Amino acid sequence: MELINNLNWRYAVKQFDPSKKVSNEDIELIKEAIRLSPSSFGLQPYKVFIIENEALKEKLKPAAWGQAQITDASHLFVFCSYQDLKEIHVDELFELKSKAYNKDISELESYVSFIKGSVAKKLPEIRRVWNSRQAYIGLSNLVNACAELKIDACPMEGFDPNAVGELLDLDSKGLDAVVLAAVGYRSSEDKNQHFPKVRKSKETLFESI
Amino acid sequence: MELINNLNWRYAVKQFDPSKKVSNEDIELIKEAIRLSPSSFGLQPYKVFIIENEALKEKLKPAAWGQAQITDASHLFVFCSYQDLKEIHVDELFELKSKAYNKDISELESYVSFIKGSVAKKLPEIRRVWNSRQAYIGLSNLVNACAELKIDACPMEGFDPNAVGELLDLDSKGLDAVVLAAVGYRSSEDKNQHFPKVRKSKETLFESI
Repeated sequence: MELINNLNWRYAVKQFDPSKKVSNEDIELIKEAIRLSPSSFGLQPYKVFIIENEALKEKLKPAAWGQAQITDASHLFVFCSYQDLKEIHVDELFELKSKAYNKDISELESYVSFIKGSVAKKLPEIRRVWNSRQAYIGLSNLVNACAELKIDACPMEGFDPNAVGELLDLDSKGLDAVVLAAVGYRSSEDKNQHFPKVRKSKETLFESI
Repeated sequence: MELINNLNWRYAVKQFDPSKKVSNEDIELIKEAIRLSPSSFGLQPYKVFIIENEALKEKLKPAAWGQAQITDASHLFVFCSYQDLKEIHVDELFELKSKAYNKDISELESYVSFIKGSVAKKLPEIRRVWNSRQAYIGLSNLVNACAELKIDACPMEGFDPNAVGELLDLDSKGLDAVVLAAVGYRSSEDKNQHFPKVRKSKETLFESI
């Protein structure tokens, strides 16, 4: 099975080869895999910054405890989820739906109201967490897309979201930096590539009823 | 690209054909894709219940606002993340690592301490959210595995986590039900299969710097 082969091939690369760049064509495929990712109600409550600019990567590095992947990788993806989810975001989704279905927005009114009601019922802090979880589905498909293309990736949670937020001016955009992914090609010296993958057994992870 | 084809093929099935069952062989492949999913530090802070028992599915249905997918789908996956992350979970990971690397646990001591320190630094509520996000990576790979196998799936967040928790006795196990996935085969009558996929444009979702 392709997905299982890809998951076995990949690992979290710690040492990238800074001389190797991911092609624009491959970046577009990775973006497409993220774009097609499922999300709650299809709201896609996040935005992804793709940073290739070396000066900005240098500035971001201290915000990620100086980890070399930030600057050595070809591209840095910064997944930023919406701090809140508002009626306007639901309206944006239904503008897209209305065009795709070739239906007037008034015909979708009851579904719009249902989603707006579901969103409003949640506490703001719950919405914030909810949005961040959707971004992880996008992250997961970045990892899978890279693996299929035999491009390396390192998902990274070890960073200061406030410092990253300041550098990308996220607060004014209503965004939280939730997870990073360094994307590029492994250095032949990365020791981690030789370690066997460690995972829980199926018996530990699953329970069938 | 296989992943993009699969993401285009899939959609959130609302009406399953209750007469069609997913084979055990395919369930094992879906489990393996979830098992191989990346997670923070490799801690896999979640457990997945796979429910085929019809009586239990009937009991769970009202906890998911009566949605028919719960009972009509072949299998219901319930992703449950750890309510907290404790030193014992880090120790469990390093027992596995020690075996896989064929190294005495004492040789991994500094890495153990680093992870325990990182975990302890987070507030309990942050750890709880952190764990739930990892479960979404597993969910994402369930969706992808199903799509590759041409099995249908419907990720579901519309349920009462307390009611599901009571039915599966999750609190005593230190678990939170965070997301469900109904897995099976679409009914030929499911109208949603005829709708075009609606997603934001790349220009809206991404920003390159």
